[in-house]
Amino acid sequence: MRTPPPLIEFWFDLASTYSYVAAADVARLEDEGRARIDYRPFLLGPVFAAQGWQDSPFNLYPAKGDYMWQDLARLCEERGLPLRRPAVFPRNSVLPACVTLAGLDQGWGKRFVLSAYTASFGYDIDIAGANGLRMMLEGLQVEPDAVLVLAASQAVRARLRENTAEAMRRGVFGAPSFFAGDTLFWGTDRLAHALRHATRQKVEDGQ
Amino acid sequence: MRTPPPLIEFWFDLASTYSYVAAADVARLEDEGRARIDYRPFLLGPVFAAQGWQDSPFNLYPAKGDYMWQDLARLCEERGLPLRRPAVFPRNSVLPACVTLAGLDQGWGKRFVLSAYTASFGYDIDIAGANGLRMMLEGLQVEPDAVLVLAASQAVRARLRENTAEAMRRGVFGAPSFFAGDTLFWGTDRLAHALRHATRQKVEDGQ
Repeated sequence: MRTPPPLIEFWFDLASTYSYVAAADVARLEDEGRARIDYRPFLLGPVFAAQGWQDSPFNLYPAKGDYMWQDLARLCEERGLPLRRPAVFPRNSVLPACVTLAGLDQGWGKRFVLSAYTASFGYDIDIAGANGLRMMLEGLQVEPDAVLVLAASQAVRARLRENTAEAMRRGVFGAPSFFAGDTLFWGTDRLAHALRHATRQKVEDGQ
Repeated sequence: MRTPPPLIEFWFDLASTYSYVAAADVARLEDEGRARIDYRPFLLGPVFAAQGWQDSPFNLYPAKGDYMWQDLARLCEERGLPLRRPAVFPRNSVLPACVTLAGLDQGWGKRFVLSAYTASFGYDIDIAGANGLRMMLEGLQVEPDAVLVLAASQAVRARLRENTAEAMRRGVFGAPSFFAGDTLFWGTDRLAHALRHATRQKVEDGQ
Protein backbone atom coordinates (compact mmCIF):
# COMPACT_ATOMS: atom_id res chain seq x y z
CA MET A 1 0.00 0.00 0.00
CA ARG A 2 1.41 3.40 -0.94
CA THR A 3 1.59 5.89 1.89
CA PRO A 4 0.56 9.46 1.15
CA PRO A 5 3.38 11.94 0.58
CA PRO A 6 4.53 14.17 3.47
CA LEU A 7 2.43 17.15 4.50
CA ILE A 8 3.64 20.76 4.32
CA GLU A 9 1.65 23.78 5.43
CA PHE A 10 1.96 26.72 3.05
CA TRP A 11 1.28 30.08 4.71
CA PHE A 12 0.88 32.92 2.25
CA ASP A 13 -0.53 36.38 1.68
CA LEU A 14 -1.83 37.16 -1.80
CA ALA A 15 -0.06 40.53 -1.58
CA SER A 16 3.36 38.91 -1.05
CA THR A 17 5.67 38.82 -4.04
CA TYR A 18 7.82 35.90 -2.97
CA SER A 19 4.67 33.92 -2.15
CA TYR A 20 3.89 34.03 -5.88
CA VAL A 21 7.05 32.04 -6.57
CA ALA A 22 6.32 29.74 -3.62
CA ALA A 23 2.77 29.11 -4.86
CA ALA A 24 4.20 27.86 -8.13
CA ASP A 25 6.76 25.70 -6.32
CA VAL A 26 4.30 24.05 -3.92
CA ALA A 27 1.82 23.42 -6.74
CA ARG A 28 4.56 21.63 -8.62
CA LEU A 29 5.54 19.53 -5.58
CA GLU A 30 1.94 18.48 -5.15
CA ASP A 31 1.43 17.82 -8.88
CA GLU A 32 4.46 15.56 -8.85
CA GLY A 33 3.10 13.67 -5.86
CA ARG A 34 6.08 14.65 -3.69
CA ALA A 35 4.08 16.49 -1.01
CA ARG A 36 0.58 17.25 0.15
CA ILE A 37 0.13 20.98 0.66
CA ASP A 38 -2.17 22.52 3.24
CA TYR A 39 -2.91 26.05 1.96
CA ARG A 40 -3.18 28.58 4.80
CA PRO A 41 -3.95 32.15 3.68
CA PHE A 42 -3.26 34.86 6.24
CA LEU A 43 -2.65 38.61 6.35
CA LEU A 44 0.85 40.03 6.60
CA GLY A 45 -0.50 43.45 7.63
CA PRO A 46 -1.08 42.60 11.31
CA VAL A 47 2.18 40.61 11.41
CA PHE A 48 4.12 43.59 10.10
CA ALA A 49 2.19 46.02 12.34
CA ALA A 50 3.31 43.96 15.35
CA GLN A 51 6.88 44.59 14.16
CA GLY A 52 6.20 48.32 13.93
CA TRP A 53 5.74 48.48 10.15
CA GLN A 54 2.71 50.21 8.67
CA ASP A 55 3.66 49.29 5.11
CA SER A 56 5.52 46.54 3.28
CA PRO A 57 9.20 46.48 4.32
CA PHE A 58 9.94 46.58 0.57
CA ASN A 59 8.37 50.05 0.51
CA LEU A 60 9.77 51.13 3.89
CA TYR A 61 13.32 50.15 2.92
CA PRO A 62 13.80 51.25 -0.70
CA ALA A 63 17.19 49.60 -1.25
CA LYS A 64 15.71 46.28 -0.15
CA GLY A 65 12.62 46.90 -2.26
CA ASP A 66 14.60 47.72 -5.42
CA TYR A 67 16.61 44.57 -4.94
CA MET A 68 13.51 42.46 -4.31
CA TRP A 69 12.01 43.30 -7.71
CA GLN A 70 15.26 42.37 -9.46
CA ASP A 71 15.61 39.18 -7.47
CA LEU A 72 11.98 38.29 -8.12
CA ALA A 73 12.54 38.76 -11.86
CA ARG A 74 15.35 36.18 -11.78
CA LEU A 75 13.27 33.70 -9.76
CA CYS A 76 10.32 34.10 -12.13
CA GLU A 77 12.53 33.73 -15.19
CA GLU A 78 13.98 30.47 -13.85
CA ARG A 79 10.46 29.08 -13.46
CA GLY A 80 8.93 30.51 -16.62
CA LEU A 81 6.52 32.64 -14.57
CA PRO A 82 5.31 35.94 -16.04
CA LEU A 83 6.23 39.08 -14.09
CA ARG A 84 5.12 42.66 -14.44
CA ARG A 85 5.67 45.10 -11.61
CA PRO A 86 2.16 45.95 -10.39
CA ALA A 87 0.89 49.53 -10.36
CA VAL A 88 -0.12 49.14 -6.71
CA PHE A 89 2.03 47.37 -4.14
CA PRO A 90 1.07 45.87 -1.85
CA ARG A 91 -2.50 45.28 -2.93
CA ASN A 92 -5.16 44.81 -0.27
CA SER A 93 -5.45 41.05 0.04
CA VAL A 94 -8.40 40.68 2.43
CA LEU A 95 -11.04 39.90 -0.18
CA PRO A 96 -8.92 37.52 -2.31
CA ALA A 97 -7.81 35.72 0.87
CA CYS A 98 -11.46 35.24 1.79
CA VAL A 99 -12.21 34.00 -1.73
CA THR A 100 -9.35 31.53 -1.24
CA LEU A 101 -10.89 30.23 1.99
CA ALA A 102 -14.24 29.76 0.23
CA GLY A 103 -12.50 28.05 -2.66
CA LEU A 104 -10.52 25.68 -0.45
CA ASP A 105 -13.84 24.46 0.98
CA GLN A 106 -15.28 24.05 -2.50
CA GLY A 107 -12.33 22.33 -4.15
CA TRP A 108 -11.02 25.07 -6.45
CA GLY A 109 -9.03 27.07 -3.89
CA LYS A 110 -5.59 25.82 -4.85
CA ARG A 111 -6.13 26.58 -8.54
CA PHE A 112 -7.41 30.01 -7.54
CA VAL A 113 -4.28 30.83 -5.56
CA LEU A 114 -1.77 30.36 -8.38
CA SER A 115 -4.15 32.01 -10.79
CA ALA A 116 -4.58 35.03 -8.48
CA TYR A 117 -0.83 35.41 -8.02
CA THR A 118 -0.24 35.13 -11.75
CA ALA A 119 -2.95 37.73 -12.45
CA SER A 120 -1.59 40.16 -9.86
CA PHE A 121 2.16 39.86 -10.41
CA GLY A 122 2.25 38.53 -13.97
CA TYR A 123 -0.36 40.79 -15.57
CA ASP A 124 -0.96 43.60 -13.07
CA ILE A 125 -4.64 42.73 -12.67
CA ASP A 126 -6.23 44.26 -9.58
CA ILE A 127 -7.21 41.26 -7.49
CA ALA A 128 -8.09 43.40 -4.47
CA GLY A 129 -11.60 44.18 -5.67
CA ALA A 130 -14.67 42.33 -6.87
CA ASN A 131 -14.20 43.13 -10.57
CA GLY A 132 -10.83 41.47 -10.92
CA LEU A 133 -11.91 38.55 -8.77
CA ARG A 134 -15.08 38.05 -10.79
CA MET A 135 -13.06 37.81 -13.99
CA MET A 136 -10.68 35.32 -12.42
CA LEU A 137 -13.44 33.14 -10.98
CA GLU A 138 -15.16 33.01 -14.34
CA GLY A 139 -11.88 31.92 -15.85
CA LEU A 140 -11.84 29.03 -13.37
CA GLN A 141 -15.46 28.11 -14.30
CA VAL A 142 -16.64 29.16 -10.84
CA GLU A 143 -19.88 31.12 -10.58
CA PRO A 144 -18.66 34.39 -9.00
CA ASP A 145 -21.74 35.94 -7.36
CA ALA A 146 -22.31 33.40 -4.60
CA VAL A 147 -18.56 33.18 -3.91
CA LEU A 148 -18.19 36.93 -3.51
CA VAL A 149 -21.12 37.04 -1.08
CA LEU A 150 -19.63 34.19 0.93
CA ALA A 151 -16.16 35.77 0.88
CA ALA A 152 -17.56 39.02 2.31
CA SER A 153 -19.36 37.21 5.16
CA GLN A 154 -18.37 37.66 8.79
CA ALA A 155 -17.79 33.92 9.15
CA VAL A 156 -15.14 33.78 6.44
CA ARG A 157 -13.52 37.01 7.58
CA ALA A 158 -13.31 35.57 11.09
CA ARG A 159 -11.51 32.50 9.75
CA LEU A 160 -8.96 34.73 8.04
CA ARG A 161 -8.39 36.60 11.31
CA GLU A 162 -7.96 33.27 13.10
CA ASN A 163 -5.40 32.12 10.53
CA THR A 164 -3.46 35.35 11.04
CA ALA A 165 -3.58 34.98 14.83
CA GLU A 166 -2.41 31.36 14.54
CA ALA A 167 0.46 32.40 12.26
CA MET A 168 1.68 34.95 14.78
CA ARG A 169 1.26 32.51 17.69
CA ARG A 170 3.42 29.98 15.85
CA GLY A 171 6.20 32.45 15.12
CA VAL A 172 5.47 33.44 11.52
CA PHE A 173 7.04 36.83 10.74
CA GLY A 174 6.87 36.94 6.96
CA ALA A 175 5.59 35.14 3.86
CA PRO A 176 5.83 32.68 2.38
CA SER A 177 6.25 30.47 5.42
CA PHE A 178 6.06 26.71 5.63
CA PHE A 179 5.51 24.33 8.50
CA ALA A 180 6.59 20.71 8.57
CA GLY A 181 4.95 19.58 11.80
CA ASP A 182 5.64 22.45 14.17
CA THR A 183 8.89 23.50 12.55
CA LEU A 184 8.82 26.83 10.72
CA PHE A 185 10.63 27.48 7.45
CA TRP A 186 10.66 30.95 5.96
CA GLY A 187 10.93 31.87 2.32
CA THR A 188 10.70 30.13 -1.01
CA ASP A 189 14.35 29.17 -0.65
CA ARG A 190 13.52 26.93 2.30
CA LEU A 191 10.85 24.75 0.71
CA ALA A 192 13.46 22.03 0.19
CA HIS A 193 14.31 22.11 3.90
CA ALA A 194 10.62 21.92 4.80
CA LEU A 195 10.17 18.93 2.49
CA ARG A 196 13.17 17.15 3.95
CA HIS A 197 11.94 17.79 7.48
CA ALA A 198 8.42 16.59 6.67
CA THR A 199 9.80 13.45 5.04
CA ARG A 200 12.05 12.62 8.00
CA GLN A 201 9.25 13.21 10.44
CA LYS A 202 7.01 10.86 8.51
CA VAL A 203 9.67 8.15 8.68
CA GLU A 204 10.13 8.70 12.42
CA ASP A 205 6.38 8.56 12.98
CA GLY A 206 6.39 5.23 11.15
CA GLN A 207 3.74 6.40 8.73
CA MET B 1 45.41 29.41 -22.61
CA ARG B 2 43.09 29.02 -19.65
CA THR B 3 41.14 32.11 -18.74
CA PRO B 4 40.75 32.94 -15.06
CA PRO B 5 37.42 32.03 -13.44
CA PRO B 6 34.73 34.72 -13.07
CA LEU B 7 35.06 37.36 -10.38
CA ILE B 8 32.58 37.78 -7.53
CA GLU B 9 32.77 40.46 -4.85
CA PHE B 10 31.94 39.15 -1.39
CA TRP B 11 30.70 41.86 0.98
CA PHE B 12 30.54 40.77 4.59
CA ASP B 13 30.51 41.88 8.20
CA LEU B 14 32.25 39.65 10.72
CA ALA B 15 29.26 40.10 13.05
CA SER B 16 26.81 38.69 10.48
CA THR B 17 25.66 35.13 11.07
CA TYR B 18 24.71 34.31 7.50
CA SER B 19 28.02 35.72 6.31
CA TYR B 20 29.68 32.85 8.20
CA VAL B 21 27.93 30.37 5.92
CA ALA B 22 28.70 32.52 2.89
CA ALA B 23 32.39 32.72 3.84
CA ALA B 24 32.56 28.93 3.77
CA ASP B 25 30.72 28.80 0.43
CA VAL B 26 32.88 31.38 -1.34
CA ALA B 27 36.06 29.79 0.00
CA ARG B 28 34.93 26.50 -1.49
CA LEU B 29 34.12 28.11 -4.86
CA GLU B 30 37.57 29.64 -4.95
CA ASP B 31 39.29 26.44 -3.80
CA GLU B 32 37.58 24.54 -6.59
CA GLY B 33 38.72 27.12 -9.13
CA ARG B 34 35.14 28.06 -10.03
CA ALA B 35 35.38 31.74 -9.04
CA ARG B 36 37.80 34.39 -7.92
CA ILE B 37 36.53 36.12 -4.81
CA ASP B 38 37.22 39.75 -3.97
CA TYR B 39 36.75 40.02 -0.18
CA ARG B 40 35.17 43.32 0.86
CA PRO B 41 34.67 43.74 4.62
CA PHE B 42 32.26 46.47 5.68
CA LEU B 43 30.16 47.44 8.67
CA LEU B 44 26.46 46.65 8.83
CA GLY B 45 25.94 49.11 11.72
CA PRO B 46 25.80 52.27 9.55
CA VAL B 47 23.76 50.41 6.91
CA PHE B 48 21.20 49.38 9.51
CA ALA B 49 21.26 52.82 11.16
CA ALA B 50 20.33 54.36 7.80
CA GLN B 51 17.28 52.05 7.86
CA GLY B 52 16.40 53.24 11.36
CA TRP B 53 17.77 50.23 13.25
CA GLN B 54 20.09 50.72 16.20
CA ASP B 55 20.61 46.98 16.70
CA SER B 56 20.62 43.81 14.59
CA PRO B 57 17.17 43.19 13.10
CA PHE B 58 17.50 39.69 14.60
CA ASN B 59 17.45 41.32 18.03
CA LEU B 60 14.87 43.97 17.16
CA TYR B 61 12.43 41.38 15.74
CA PRO B 62 12.57 38.40 18.11
CA ALA B 63 10.43 36.02 15.99
CA LYS B 64 12.80 36.61 13.08
CA GLY B 65 15.80 36.22 15.36
CA ASP B 66 14.61 32.94 16.87
CA TYR B 67 14.03 31.59 13.41
CA MET B 68 17.41 32.77 12.17
CA TRP B 69 19.30 30.71 14.76
CA GLN B 70 17.34 27.59 13.82
CA ASP B 71 17.80 28.21 10.12
CA LEU B 72 21.50 28.88 10.63
CA ALA B 73 21.83 25.56 12.48
CA ARG B 74 20.44 23.71 9.46
CA LEU B 75 22.71 25.57 7.03
CA CYS B 76 25.76 24.86 9.19
CA GLU B 77 24.83 21.20 9.58
CA GLU B 78 24.54 20.79 5.80
CA ARG B 79 28.05 22.16 5.40
CA GLY B 80 29.66 20.50 8.40
CA LEU B 81 30.34 23.87 10.03
CA PRO B 82 30.42 24.09 13.83
CA LEU B 83 27.80 26.32 15.44
CA ARG B 84 27.39 27.55 18.97
CA ARG B 85 25.14 30.49 19.69
CA PRO B 86 27.49 33.25 20.88
CA ALA B 87 27.12 34.86 24.30
CA VAL B 88 27.16 38.30 22.67
CA PHE B 89 25.33 39.10 19.44
CA PRO B 90 26.15 41.03 17.44
CA ARG B 91 29.81 41.38 18.37
CA ASN B 92 31.59 44.62 17.54
CA SER B 93 33.31 43.88 14.26
CA VAL B 94 35.37 47.04 13.72
CA LEU B 95 38.69 45.64 14.87
CA PRO B 96 38.41 42.23 13.18
CA ALA B 97 37.31 43.99 9.96
CA CYS B 98 40.45 46.13 10.15
CA VAL B 99 42.56 43.04 10.79
CA THR B 100 40.96 41.55 7.68
CA LEU B 101 41.97 44.57 5.60
CA ALA B 102 45.53 44.28 6.86
CA GLY B 103 45.50 40.57 6.15
CA LEU B 104 44.17 40.96 2.62
CA ASP B 105 47.16 43.19 1.87
CA GLN B 106 49.54 40.65 3.41
CA GLY B 107 48.13 37.51 1.83
CA TRP B 108 46.49 35.82 4.82
CA GLY B 109 43.24 37.79 4.90
CA LYS B 110 41.03 35.18 3.29
CA ARG B 111 42.19 32.45 5.68
CA PHE B 112 41.62 34.87 8.55
CA VAL B 113 38.01 35.53 7.55
CA LEU B 114 36.80 31.94 7.66
CA SER B 115 38.83 31.32 10.77
CA ALA B 116 37.32 34.39 12.51
CA TYR B 117 33.78 33.36 11.60
CA THR B 118 34.40 29.82 12.80
CA ALA B 119 35.87 31.09 16.07
CA SER B 120 32.99 33.51 16.70
CA PHE B 121 30.01 31.40 15.65
CA GLY B 122 31.44 27.91 16.00
CA TYR B 123 33.21 28.28 19.35
CA ASP B 124 31.90 31.53 20.87
CA ILE B 125 35.36 33.10 20.94
CA ASP B 126 35.28 36.88 21.37
CA ILE B 127 36.79 38.20 18.15
CA ALA B 128 35.86 41.81 18.95
CA GLY B 129 38.90 42.44 21.10
CA ALA B 130 42.66 42.13 20.83
CA ASN B 131 42.93 38.98 22.98
CA GLY B 132 40.78 36.80 20.78
CA LEU B 133 42.34 38.22 17.64
CA ARG B 134 45.85 37.64 18.94
CA MET B 135 45.06 33.97 19.56
CA MET B 136 43.60 33.60 16.08
CA LEU B 137 46.50 35.33 14.35
CA GLU B 138 48.96 33.10 16.16
CA GLY B 139 46.96 30.11 14.95
CA LEU B 140 47.45 31.37 11.39
CA GLN B 141 51.21 31.80 12.00
CA VAL B 142 50.87 35.57 11.75
CA GLU B 143 52.83 37.70 14.21
CA PRO B 144 49.97 39.55 15.99
CA ASP B 145 51.57 42.70 17.46
CA ALA B 146 52.36 44.55 14.25
CA VAL B 147 49.03 43.52 12.75
CA LEU B 148 47.05 44.84 15.70
CA VAL B 149 48.87 48.16 15.56
CA LEU B 150 48.22 48.43 11.83
CA ALA B 151 44.56 47.44 12.28
CA ALA B 152 44.06 50.21 14.82
CA SER B 153 45.59 52.85 12.53
CA GLN B 154 43.59 55.72 11.11
CA ALA B 155 44.50 54.67 7.57
CA VAL B 156 42.99 51.20 7.90
CA ARG B 157 39.93 52.49 9.74
CA ALA B 158 39.39 55.00 6.93
CA ARG B 159 39.45 52.17 4.38
CA LEU B 160 36.78 50.32 6.34
CA ARG B 161 34.63 53.48 6.39
CA GLU B 162 35.14 53.83 2.63
CA ASN B 163 34.10 50.23 2.05
CA THR B 164 30.93 50.83 4.08
CA ALA B 165 30.14 54.02 2.17
CA GLU B 166 30.71 52.22 -1.13
CA ALA B 167 28.40 49.39 -0.05
CA MET B 168 25.61 51.84 0.73
CA ARG B 169 26.19 53.78 -2.47
CA ARG B 170 25.85 50.55 -4.47
CA GLY B 171 22.60 49.53 -2.79
CA VAL B 172 23.82 47.01 -0.18
CA PHE B 173 21.25 46.70 2.63
CA GLY B 174 22.40 43.53 4.39
CA ALA B 175 25.08 40.87 4.53
CA PRO B 176 26.29 38.74 2.97
CA SER B 177 26.02 40.54 -0.34
CA PHE B 178 27.67 39.68 -3.61
CA PHE B 179 28.35 41.67 -6.75
CA ALA B 180 28.87 40.23 -10.18
CA GLY B 181 29.88 43.33 -12.11
CA ASP B 182 27.48 45.97 -10.85
CA THR B 183 24.65 43.54 -10.12
CA LEU B 184 23.84 42.97 -6.45
CA PHE B 185 22.90 39.61 -4.99
CA TRP B 186 21.83 39.35 -1.36
CA GLY B 187 22.20 36.37 0.91
CA THR B 188 24.03 33.07 0.90
CA ASP B 189 21.16 31.61 -1.08
CA ARG B 190 21.98 33.83 -4.03
CA LEU B 191 25.64 32.90 -4.50
CA ALA B 192 24.64 30.58 -7.35
CA HIS B 193 22.85 33.44 -9.10
CA ALA B 194 25.90 35.66 -8.64
CA LEU B 195 28.15 32.98 -10.09
CA ARG B 196 25.87 32.47 -13.08
CA HIS B 197 25.72 36.21 -13.71
CA ALA B 198 29.49 36.59 -13.43
CA THR B 199 30.02 33.68 -15.82
CA ARG B 200 27.61 35.08 -18.42
CA GLN B 201 29.15 38.51 -18.19
CA LYS B 202 32.58 37.06 -18.77
CA VAL B 203 31.34 35.31 -21.93
CA GLU B 204 29.69 38.51 -23.16
CA ASP B 205 32.83 40.49 -22.49
CA GLY B 206 34.71 37.94 -24.60
CA GLN B 207 37.16 37.25 -21.80
